[in-house]
Amino acid sequence: MTKQEDNEIYLKTFEIIRPLKTEERESLLSYSQIRRYKRRQFVVERGNICRYYYFVIKGCLRLYYVDDKGNEHNLLFAIEGQWISDLESIHSKEDSKLFIDAVEDTEVVYIEHTQLCELWNKYQIFDRYFRVITEDGYVELLKRITINNSSSGYERYRLFSNVYPHLVGRLSGIQIASYLGITPEFLSKIKSQHQKEKKEALK
Amino acid sequence: MTKQEDNEIYLKTFEIIRPLKTEERESLLSYSQIRRYKRRQFVVERGNICRYYYFVIKGCLRLYYVDDKGNEHNLLFAIEGQWISDLESIHSKEDSKLFIDAVEDTEVVYIEHTQLCELWNKYQIFDRYFRVITEDGYVELLKRITINNSSSGYERYRLFSNVYPHLVGRLSGIQIASYLGITPEFLSKIKSQHQKEKKEALK
Repeated sequence: MTKQEDNEIYLKTFEIIRPLKTEERESLLSYSQIRRYKRRQFVVERGNICRYYYFVIKGCLRLYYVDDKGNEHNLLFAIEGQWISDLESIHSKEDSKLFIDAVEDTEVVYIEHTQLCELWNKYQIFDRYFRVITEDGYVELLKRITINNSSSGYERYRLFSNVYPHLVGRLSGIQIASYLGITPEFLSKIKSQHQKEKKEALK
Repeated sequence: MTKQEDNEIYLKTFEIIRPLKTEERESLLSYSQIRRYKRRQFVVERGNICRYYYFVIKGCLRLYYVDDKGNEHNLLFAIEGQWISDLESIHSKEDSKLFIDAVEDTEVVYIEHTQLCELWNKYQIFDRYFRVITEDGYVELLKRITINNSSSGYERYRLFSNVYPHLVGRLSGIQIASYLGITPEFLSKIKSQHQKEKKEALK
């Protein structure tokens, strides 16, 4: 993928509001940088202040925390066209309590929060864009809570695969299990049951 | 509380960005209306399209859903100075899958989404304000997920009471239990244990 193609993917996302004017586009690009992460490489580590917003061009990042017992809990995933960051750390300017790492080899565009603030101050479209995508992210998180509130692991997996069918084939069982709050072994049983029921429904 | 006092509380919230100019303030107030809800009265009902953003002047609203078995699951609470709405229904213009009702007698300022869009188009400060509060709401939801991911009910309650001490004394056991995904009876046991441990820690 060329840098030009990356730019097109990146700039296109802002068009959900309206096409960017030349000045807005140039300002945005002057603040945006490209970086590649290898699978399992850290993007944000607990104990450091998070300063960037990351936009996934290709690949998949995950936001997660590690509990006192050392267990990882996946909070959310970001694939192509989605943003991810630790907003709490950015806002508070305190160390992140979370991690972001690459689930696959991943290419991102990243932009520093202070530079984003400059863009917000200069051009309303960027305030608008980030309001809209944050509202979308907010709705996604409510869905995530609804999925995890379901009492049975089977129901959680069923809802997850309905809402995020594109993630089911892409994420490992370990990653999905950690998102659903169940063990990978239990997820494996659930997946077999789910497949069986889907086949029977087609008979 | 007089209407003037309500206005001051309402207008003050926007000052986290900067003081409103006269024109912005007048535009905002011309679109904003006040309404009172009795405890347990519905604000938004599943099966209707949600069209408003609600700002709590006094009282407490909750956003929740009802599962197939008829069990209520509280997603979040909004108290004085906080906004609440069903953004998914507003964005999709489809029937809400959620409910909002009053946990206490509540007074709100509400504003129609279409009129808010006019404000967003006219004055950047409102785009900015709603971006900032949505980002804050997003961070709150991530905290909520972290709380509910904790494996033990005791740990969930401990985290909840640390993050939202002002809600502990204000919400009934039923409401807190429904937020934490446990039964009110179990919450009652946990609360006794928590009190006991707090007292012992003070000895």
